[in-house]
Amino acid sequence: MSWMKKMALGLALGASLTTPAWALDQIVQKRTFRLPVYTTVGGQTVKEMKVGFETYGTLNDSRDNAILITHFYSGTSHAAGKYAESDAAPGYWDTIIGPGKPLDTDKYFIIASDTPLNLNTKDPHVVTTGPASINPDTGKPWGMDFPVLSIGDFVRVQKSLVDSFGIPKLRAVAGASMGSMQALEWSAAYPEMVDKVVAVIPPGLEFDAYQIGVLSLWAAPIKLDPRWQGGAYAEDKPPVDGLALALANVTLDALHNGWANAKFGRAMAEPGKDPAQSLDNDYAVASGLAKMGSARAAKADARHFVYLARANQQFTIADRLDRLRARYLLMPASSDLLFPPALSHAAAATLKQKGRDVQVVEIPGTGGHLDGVTRMAEVAEPLRSFLAQ
Amino acid sequence: MSWMKKMALGLALGASLTTPAWALDQIVQKRTFRLPVYTTVGGQTVKEMKVGFETYGTLNDSRDNAILITHFYSGTSHAAGKYAESDAAPGYWDTIIGPGKPLDTDKYFIIASDTPLNLNTKDPHVVTTGPASINPDTGKPWGMDFPVLSIGDFVRVQKSLVDSFGIPKLRAVAGASMGSMQALEWSAAYPEMVDKVVAVIPPGLEFDAYQIGVLSLWAAPIKLDPRWQGGAYAEDKPPVDGLALALANVTLDALHNGWANAKFGRAMAEPGKDPAQSLDNDYAVASGLAKMGSARAAKADARHFVYLARANQQFTIADRLDRLRARYLLMPASSDLLFPPALSHAAAATLKQKGRDVQVVEIPGTGGHLDGVTRMAEVAEPLRSFLAQ
Repeated sequence: MSWMKKMALGLALGASLTTPAWALDQIVQKRTFRLPVYTTVGGQTVKEMKVGFETYGTLNDSRDNAILITHFYSGTSHAAGKYAESDAAPGYWDTIIGPGKPLDTDKYFIIASDTPLNLNTKDPHVVTTGPASINPDTGKPWGMDFPVLSIGDFVRVQKSLVDSFGIPKLRAVAGASMGSMQALEWSAAYPEMVDKVVAVIPPGLEFDAYQIGVLSLWAAPIKLDPRWQGGAYAEDKPPVDGLALALANVTLDALHNGWANAKFGRAMAEPGKDPAQSLDNDYAVASGLAKMGSARAAKADARHFVYLARANQQFTIADRLDRLRARYLLMPASSDLLFPPALSHAAAATLKQKGRDVQVVEIPGTGGHLDGVTRMAEVAEPLRSFLAQ
Repeated sequence: MSWMKKMALGLALGASLTTPAWALDQIVQKRTFRLPVYTTVGGQTVKEMKVGFETYGTLNDSRDNAILITHFYSGTSHAAGKYAESDAAPGYWDTIIGPGKPLDTDKYFIIASDTPLNLNTKDPHVVTTGPASINPDTGKPWGMDFPVLSIGDFVRVQKSLVDSFGIPKLRAVAGASMGSMQALEWSAAYPEMVDKVVAVIPPGLEFDAYQIGVLSLWAAPIKLDPRWQGGAYAEDKPPVDGLALALANVTLDALHNGWANAKFGRAMAEPGKDPAQSLDNDYAVASGLAKMGSARAAKADARHFVYLARANQQFTIADRLDRLRARYLLMPASSDLLFPPALSHAAAATLKQKGRDVQVVEIPGTGGHLDGVTRMAEVAEPLRSFLAQ
């Protein structure tokens, strides 16, 4: 299996290299949570709101051992285990989920939830609802008539999912990157329902202007693709080139010089075809990024990308700091170029000022933002002790 | 004059805010250096190779007081002074060039050079040669028949310019970003001709795999624009949308959260048009970046962008470390997200290992990479003392 496929499949390369064992030694299943009618934060209606979820461990009789895991931008709810023994890699946080692991399936009941607007609409294991979904009122895909959603909407849907188990309060909500935003939003939207927040590689307490700009530039190539057509493209003519470039942007921003140098160095894409000789030749890293973007685009939907970028841009809990009641563990990655650790330290200072109990633990590494997905085993102990407190 | 125009005009906003005075109180002129035939490092021929340059100060009789200034990716040779009293802003490094300034025009003869492949082909003050230039053999623009150039070629052309003054040895070569790459390349290509190198916001001693990837993603929107046509587009139908997005990428990567938050915050692009309500609405920062990209694209050439990216990607002096003889001052910007200070510290360690005299001085600020252009006044003293040593 190529490195590219490994990256595309849950971005689990680092994890699979550092952890030979499969931590949650269990076959897991994607299940579907369905709301016949969902009313958005903005007051609009979505019929047949569906999201996928997986569970690991067992809900106890008092229903007080549940932890919710929320996924990152390009991720899914497949956080641990395998769908089949033959799967190349387990879920993305498998190294920290399982018996005896920090997210201990002998103690906790873990729910991992897909979000609405999930990018990977063509992944058979993803269940989501967004502009690519059929609008029951028309029998056709929603397209750009789908309402704008926010991280607040993702959390509101998850709240119904958690309610469906009769769980009155979560031990914790934990997530990486966009998952951290959902975890933080949970603590602002439902402060009485969240004991602890584990915010891994978070952007801070809101998306700032720079981050809003980054996401607008991520999405911009989609709109530049002549097949975009304002989002009203034919289902068999999607803007795959724009989407591939958007996903190449995401890929590189989530990584780091250390990763790129180890993987590609300054090698040519093809032996003997020197980039110094012709613009038709290229570097291995450029060619590799293009291939990764295309591979990821083959499973994704361009409209979902544009909607998902907007959902992220809206993120803020800075407007509701006085409502917060949870304890917080912020885990930035030391080499993160997208959300550098300084943002977590600033967020911690703000939370402390508001009387919150906050710890900041940095994830070591040279893999950039993605270390929050692949290198969590290295911060297993502080994570375990925070959850056990 | 709007902030956007100020940024577009030499990116001199920061400088104009922090320095009310106009340091080089002098009207300057763009002059043209011409080579009837230039042979590239790769062995190809360019007839009528022309680059612009400006000079400040006076060459002494012994011709040993010259300093060469080399410009950044989107810059020009307009480093100091004004073309006319009515100019909105002086050249980009005006705060450190002038009588009594670190680049002291009472002591030094300063040559600031344009490069081949300069982006700003439609700026009347820029003289450059590249794919947008007329090929004397055909009477038509070179287009994609123009040979691939490298930073080594830029320096080779500058060597002829310096020779034309009868200057046997430069006191220093100084430049920011791509300018630092030229300064470093000078010290590897002509070690006997360079006493000192001032490498401001440098990428390190070579473009690494990550940086090669970043530049390939900068240029990618141009190739996605349907008007690109493999570079063989009609002169009156250039791929302006792709070029504008490419330049928006450059703009944001050169800045920082601190800048974006101070300038835009989370404001809407238009009052009452909430991005949470409709994808047709947007954030001020997204709209601002799009406008900056378009404004910069109006002066630039898409083919030059693609060629210039490739010239940068090829940069390395890591292959010639044993040739180096110069003394080095590396000046990374503390908040640089594109070329973080760690890259300069690593480069300094390598240079020291090779017996070079190296200093690293960080430029403070929260403006990102661009602080190497706009905040040089804050490191004036270490710069002055390095040059005077």
